[in-house]
Amino acid sequence: MPPHTIEELIHPRSIAVVGASGSGRGGGFVSPLLELGYKGDIYPVNPKYDEILGMKAYGRITDIPGPVDFVISSIPASGVLKLVDDCGEKGVKLMHLFTARFSETGRKDAAELEQELLRRAQQRGIRLIGPNCLGLYYPEERIAFHNGMPPESGSVGLASQSGQAAGDIVGFAAERGVRFSKAFSYGNALDFNECDYLDYFAQDAATKIITLYIEGVRDGPRFLDSLRRASAVKPVIVVKGGRGEAGTRATASHTASLAGSREIWQAVVDQAGVMTARDFEEMVDLLVPLYFLPEITGRSVGVAGGSGGSSVLAADLCEEAGLNVIPLPDDIREELRRQDNAIWDWVGNPVDSSISMGDDSSANAVIRLMAGHPSFDLLILFVSGPWHHGDGEFSVDEHLKRYGLGDLHGEPVALVFGDRTRGSGDDAVAYQEINDRLRQRLIDDSFPVYPNVRRASAALGKIVDYYEKRH
Amino acid sequence: MPPHTIEELIHPRSIAVVGASGSGRGGGFVSPLLELGYKGDIYPVNPKYDEILGMKAYGRITDIPGPVDFVISSIPASGVLKLVDDCGEKGVKLMHLFTARFSETGRKDAAELEQELLRRAQQRGIRLIGPNCLGLYYPEERIAFHNGMPPESGSVGLASQSGQAAGDIVGFAAERGVRFSKAFSYGNALDFNECDYLDYFAQDAATKIITLYIEGVRDGPRFLDSLRRASAVKPVIVVKGGRGEAGTRATASHTASLAGSREIWQAVVDQAGVMTARDFEEMVDLLVPLYFLPEITGRSVGVAGGSGGSSVLAADLCEEAGLNVIPLPDDIREELRRQDNAIWDWVGNPVDSSISMGDDSSANAVIRLMAGHPSFDLLILFVSGPWHHGDGEFSVDEHLKRYGLGDLHGEPVALVFGDRTRGSGDDAVAYQEINDRLRQRLIDDSFPVYPNVRRASAALGKIVDYYEKRH
Repeated sequence: MPPHTIEELIHPRSIAVVGASGSGRGGGFVSPLLELGYKGDIYPVNPKYDEILGMKAYGRITDIPGPVDFVISSIPASGVLKLVDDCGEKGVKLMHLFTARFSETGRKDAAELEQELLRRAQQRGIRLIGPNCLGLYYPEERIAFHNGMPPESGSVGLASQSGQAAGDIVGFAAERGVRFSKAFSYGNALDFNECDYLDYFAQDAATKIITLYIEGVRDGPRFLDSLRRASAVKPVIVVKGGRGEAGTRATASHTASLAGSREIWQAVVDQAGVMTARDFEEMVDLLVPLYFLPEITGRSVGVAGGSGGSSVLAADLCEEAGLNVIPLPDDIREELRRQDNAIWDWVGNPVDSSISMGDDSSANAVIRLMAGHPSFDLLILFVSGPWHHGDGEFSVDEHLKRYGLGDLHGEPVALVFGDRTRGSGDDAVAYQEINDRLRQRLIDDSFPVYPNVRRASAALGKIVDYYEKRH
Repeated sequence: MPPHTIEELIHPRSIAVVGASGSGRGGGFVSPLLELGYKGDIYPVNPKYDEILGMKAYGRITDIPGPVDFVISSIPASGVLKLVDDCGEKGVKLMHLFTARFSETGRKDAAELEQELLRRAQQRGIRLIGPNCLGLYYPEERIAFHNGMPPESGSVGLASQSGQAAGDIVGFAAERGVRFSKAFSYGNALDFNECDYLDYFAQDAATKIITLYIEGVRDGPRFLDSLRRASAVKPVIVVKGGRGEAGTRATASHTASLAGSREIWQAVVDQAGVMTARDFEEMVDLLVPLYFLPEITGRSVGVAGGSGGSSVLAADLCEEAGLNVIPLPDDIREELRRQDNAIWDWVGNPVDSSISMGDDSSANAVIRLMAGHPSFDLLILFVSGPWHHGDGEFSVDEHLKRYGLGDLHGEPVALVFGDRTRGSGDDAVAYQEINDRLRQRLIDDSFPVYPNVRRASAALGKIVDYYEKRH
């Protein structure tokens, strides 16, 4: 299979940022390239400056001495036709237009300008990302559109019609340990559209999971076809913006999208066998088990480590999410009795940590037996910060020892690690810091970590549905 | 109306903590009393110590020189009958039994011991909270069961069958600015049960909102009656533990509760007109608008300040939660045109902050007009941290000025303030600190603050349903 057109375009030898100013949102595309360490040449273009962030600034694209493969435009819409002409002259192959105020304004002249932009780019052989978007994040090539985006590559591909959404999804996912192969914020989808990105991700070897934020689809049948083909080879998670009346109105003014009806959309995603989420938090909740865990082969779940009421509610929430909280198997109970475990007759599934009254070994013995038992397809375990953080140095290793998580690597295990504020002032700050370190360690150890069991069970229930339908 | 029995018992002149050790969970009830500054006498009782936390320790309740009104028991179950006898001799009126391992173990002898405990307490005129619970939090009397519980009083009453739940609910609510009149963790409900607490809160002038975490109900008809009477005078929010099969099994081993079927439960809460939540986070999400806002008189919502995709999704999520995201009224658009607002023809509801491109005044003008317009019953506004926290001292006042929230006090306005991590290391810590300060200020200014619009809209939709049904 020949490389996808997009693959051919996203390894530029050089990037020019037109309208660069070195600061602020609009002209700020130079700074993330420097921060991530983009290895090609960076050319800031702005006739108002001699120098931007320590680099020579050029008045026009055509003033740049070397070749320019990729241009990021953050100039006003009124200047883009001229810019496309210059880019054509310079041999530019790909343009990303942060430039906005085209068809999304609902104004006729702006929509006409957008069509002329497309026509000229096509004439000059230039492909477009956008307009009205944040463009490309490609950590392996050290290309980013924000400061603070992770330099590490991962296996998730993202195409997002909204730039804010692209930043949020990458950021939320990063906090949970998930990294991206590439992310495209593609706005008004004037040239490359959702189908192109989807087709590209379907064949991109670096992308194992595909995520989409979509407001509107230009060509319904082609989209369904692309979605089906992608979904046949990789898990796809979609957040659709503009599901209802008001949202549909909003997509028009955001990315000039025609959102279509909720019913048609639902039929499309059902036929294509993709997962859907209502917002980006839900999307990332679905991402983490796909990213970290092996396939989950059934819906029988063991739950452990919640205390009292939270253990009871964990059972309710798991059932409500479509998981089966099966009773503790008799042979496990027998084995616990043989081991002289003090709670052998009292303990159940969920394993209520409060009944072992501080004796972690008795609860951990149950967890180990559940993990090794064929009746359980999945475990959800609660991990907590310390009740008292003490006066000495807090040891993450020491604290986590009591949970015996080391044996559970590579198993289908999700963790619930909740924040709980303790007091206020310095004490709360110290407690927060300990909790942050604990959570980060669990994430670094490649566990899916959720802040509460409602979100964990909701996501895992949908993942189990997904795997079940695929077979 | 004479004061409720519970009211008469919870103003003790003195508290004895039997089984006190000054440290650890079990004996730790002395420390929270000291921390909160309980004004009566505190008597630690433990024959193994001469002194606990700087106070003289007594060998037995009967050794204490002064009167003892309230006893907290954290000794093992085997010692409680003797303790009740001593308490009878000493004239104790109320006992809270942290002591556990009674009927919840599922063991016959433990259940019999529990019944004998009740019989003896009744003989001696002693009322019981518990056993198997954390007891009383009463900030006005400076009584707490954890360190770090807020010293401030508020208007929410809580009765929770689970101690962990009581601590979590108070803690989660405190982070959102909500304070409690009293909270009871009541465990096995051997003497005072859910109906007693409900009846008490219904007539307690300091309690304006009632919250319950319930696993099982001893007397269905009496419970429905109490719930109805309470709900007739105050909003009631219930989280039920043990809604499904596995949860029901778990309640038996947690608080020896018979949970009953999901259908019966649903019929009860529907008849009583109370609000339900699936977990404590959802409960607190419902609490905050009840606590901070005036009555919401309809379901037409104005949404503003989300950017791009998050603005589109805000519209979807609000509609899915049963709110009406009405189009921007014509007279508001006309007024914007008169004001020469640059986005008068483009802006809609939701107000997408990205289209005003950094010109806050144009978006704020829309928000002000929506707040003053009779078509809107409720506003949901996004507030964000800064994109760059800069090098100088960050000013919360300066940052919040751009949102013009000052005019919105006392209006039905909820805020969405999300965390977004920026980068890592020192920069992320500084950004986190700024975000924490901003969120705290919004909470201190008595706004309901949610981390995302999904939770805000879900809660507000249920609150609107509640007010609608009440009329």
